[in-house]
Amino acid sequence: MTRPSGGDTVAGLLAEIDDLGRDPVRGGWSRPVLSDAELGLREWFVAHATKRGLDVETDRNGVIWAWHAPDGSYQDAVVTGSHLDSVPGGGAYDGPLGVASALVAFDQLAAAGVAGRPRAIAVFPEEEGSRFGVACLGSRLLTGAIAPDRALALTDPDGRTFAGVLAASGAAPEQIGPDPWALGRMGAFVELHVEQGRGLIDLGRPVAVGSSILGHGRWRVTIDGAGNHAGTTVMEDRHDPMVAAGALVVAVQAIARAVPGARATVGRLVPTPGGTNVIASRIDLWLDVRHRDDATTLGLVEEVRMAADRAAAEQGCRATVREESFSATVDFDAALRDELCGVLPDAPVLATGAGHDAGVLKEHVPTAMLFVRNPTGVSHAPDEVVEDADAEEGADALAATLQHLITHREPAI
Amino acid sequence: MTRPSGGDTVAGLLAEIDDLGRDPVRGGWSRPVLSDAELGLREWFVAHATKRGLDVETDRNGVIWAWHAPDGSYQDAVVTGSHLDSVPGGGAYDGPLGVASALVAFDQLAAAGVAGRPRAIAVFPEEEGSRFGVACLGSRLLTGAIAPDRALALTDPDGRTFAGVLAASGAAPEQIGPDPWALGRMGAFVELHVEQGRGLIDLGRPVAVGSSILGHGRWRVTIDGAGNHAGTTVMEDRHDPMVAAGALVVAVQAIARAVPGARATVGRLVPTPGGTNVIASRIDLWLDVRHRDDATTLGLVEEVRMAADRAAAEQGCRATVREESFSATVDFDAALRDELCGVLPDAPVLATGAGHDAGVLKEHVPTAMLFVRNPTGVSHAPDEVVEDADAEEGADALAATLQHLITHREPAI
Repeated sequence: MTRPSGGDTVAGLLAEIDDLGRDPVRGGWSRPVLSDAELGLREWFVAHATKRGLDVETDRNGVIWAWHAPDGSYQDAVVTGSHLDSVPGGGAYDGPLGVASALVAFDQLAAAGVAGRPRAIAVFPEEEGSRFGVACLGSRLLTGAIAPDRALALTDPDGRTFAGVLAASGAAPEQIGPDPWALGRMGAFVELHVEQGRGLIDLGRPVAVGSSILGHGRWRVTIDGAGNHAGTTVMEDRHDPMVAAGALVVAVQAIARAVPGARATVGRLVPTPGGTNVIASRIDLWLDVRHRDDATTLGLVEEVRMAADRAAAEQGCRATVREESFSATVDFDAALRDELCGVLPDAPVLATGAGHDAGVLKEHVPTAMLFVRNPTGVSHAPDEVVEDADAEEGADALAATLQHLITHREPAI
Repeated sequence: MTRPSGGDTVAGLLAEIDDLGRDPVRGGWSRPVLSDAELGLREWFVAHATKRGLDVETDRNGVIWAWHAPDGSYQDAVVTGSHLDSVPGGGAYDGPLGVASALVAFDQLAAAGVAGRPRAIAVFPEEEGSRFGVACLGSRLLTGAIAPDRALALTDPDGRTFAGVLAASGAAPEQIGPDPWALGRMGAFVELHVEQGRGLIDLGRPVAVGSSILGHGRWRVTIDGAGNHAGTTVMEDRHDPMVAAGALVVAVQAIARAVPGARATVGRLVPTPGGTNVIASRIDLWLDVRHRDDATTLGLVEEVRMAADRAAAEQGCRATVREESFSATVDFDAALRDELCGVLPDAPVLATGAGHDAGVLKEHVPTAMLFVRNPTGVSHAPDEVVEDADAEEGADALAATLQHLITHREPAI
């Protein structure tokens, strides 16, 4: 499809939000859900969607929908989109690339007068789980994959509950939860995302079709010890949870290294109270484990649980391990994937180790993904990058995909 | 000395500030220097000093002085005092006990009409070093133990410089530094402090005279690795500084345990960026090391430095260790200590593992300390406590000590 002349480019749209959520301490961008930065990004999206004549609504779980449904029918819609929140100190493309590409693709569809099934752009909140600990929180709420009560009780690093932060933002915490009506409108979902590994670099291609998402989850390990003065407490009298945590982090690496294809990470660790001259009373650390085989993933976590018990016992401390989220390995809809491969014959098919809302939605809607090349292969860090030409190729591929689905695909329901 | 009837008690004064800086997340109190809580405590002190007719001044390093100098002479003064800042999630007595006891002791001196050498209460900022990383920052600046430029460049956990925070508080950053005039007025300094160990519990006594402070310091260890996505980066491709930090924390314990009387602690550890699904790019951790023998302390740090290099190299990371502060073992002025023992014949003599402004001032002024029993033995944690009766005994002991020094002691200069 040709681009409308003078229209927005993906690079141009992303340049507009480049300043939002810059992190002077960590580098990169920090855009936790419902922070000033993320709210600013949501406003930016709503303004662009409104300018394009799309009907914008925010549902009761905080998902923004921007509709093109000229016949007044919202059924069997073709939906694309992604998220605007980021990890702390993340890159500029993880999330916003998919949203900006959706806007540019919709411009192409409008210019070409593409008609057929209704279409929408969806923006999902808290995809990263960086603020409240559960990744893909918006899509999990929408689909009922997390109970509203559990979600409302989640806390951010400042101790604020999701319920409180929602209420402060003007939303209605009591209304969150499964929304079969909103979900039922989706006939297909295609998420475009920056690739988070090196697959497209190695293949020398700008765009890939997604095949699957590695099963993954996060677990919170709490090690309770005895806080005391670092100067006056002799070594023999200590119950220092930091030492137990250190031993556990080392053990996690060894456990994952022993299993081919496994990945296990401790990237977040918070001592309480966290003073230099204070033996910590408690350590909270978060464990991220992924493997293609779900039973293997859960077996790895069991090994970590035993290692945590051992490490804590050695220091006279106590460890508890709680699951915060778990997503089984997702194979995207095979028929939809094959259709995308037909539209994009040059695009290779790639799996990903990263979680996405598309993976959560997959249980309810045929979903597919497109990945755009990341020449550093680095993700969740400021070095993540997409070249401008690849970004535009990605939007073109998305437009072609959406056009095909809008005009050719059989209704799913 | 008899108490003036209807006057303040130590317990009553501390009850007035009980709400300031309560920490709902960590428990206990968090009163970092120049925070709203600590500024509130300073106002509380100034109000009490003013009400007592003391002349209050804040010097260019942020030390508050409250003077009783009816003859207009400030030379060879007898000074007592402590600090109002706290560690994160600390107890209510560490610092404020010494300040409240000084006010009550001054009431007794006034009621008894004690005259002689001028007297003052001093309140030192950032004794804990919890915000800007250098303990006893106020007394170090006053005495020239830290260069003003280095102090101004120190940063807090939010990345704000001491210079910026000082300026925002209305102080003049360019004026900080050695102040021989202010320091030269002190003829003796006696600091009363809650005991931070179990010495007085074991001896069954409420008050002790201090003999020495264990040499101690803090070092910042930075381990640089490569930030990346926790799901898409295979184990073999990682340069994960968290694993190196974990191994180092375990090594620190082993190094300290091998040396009798040594204490080494990692109580603060900050991953960057600190996301659950992100391999950290950098870990900063703080090392607290103490030993009676200063050469042994520095030898322990050298061992930790080598362990950090090894742990980092094993992960393909790089470690740097920087000294943030070091205080040699301090033996308090022997003559002054003996005088205190004469005034308080029932008080045992105890060493402490905790640092104090009295230790920094000792190079310039005869200093002494009084310790008040802490029935839990716990310090730098919410469980730290002083029984009301012991608090009043402490204030009485301080009043008797000050009376003796004001009326009997030979001028030091």
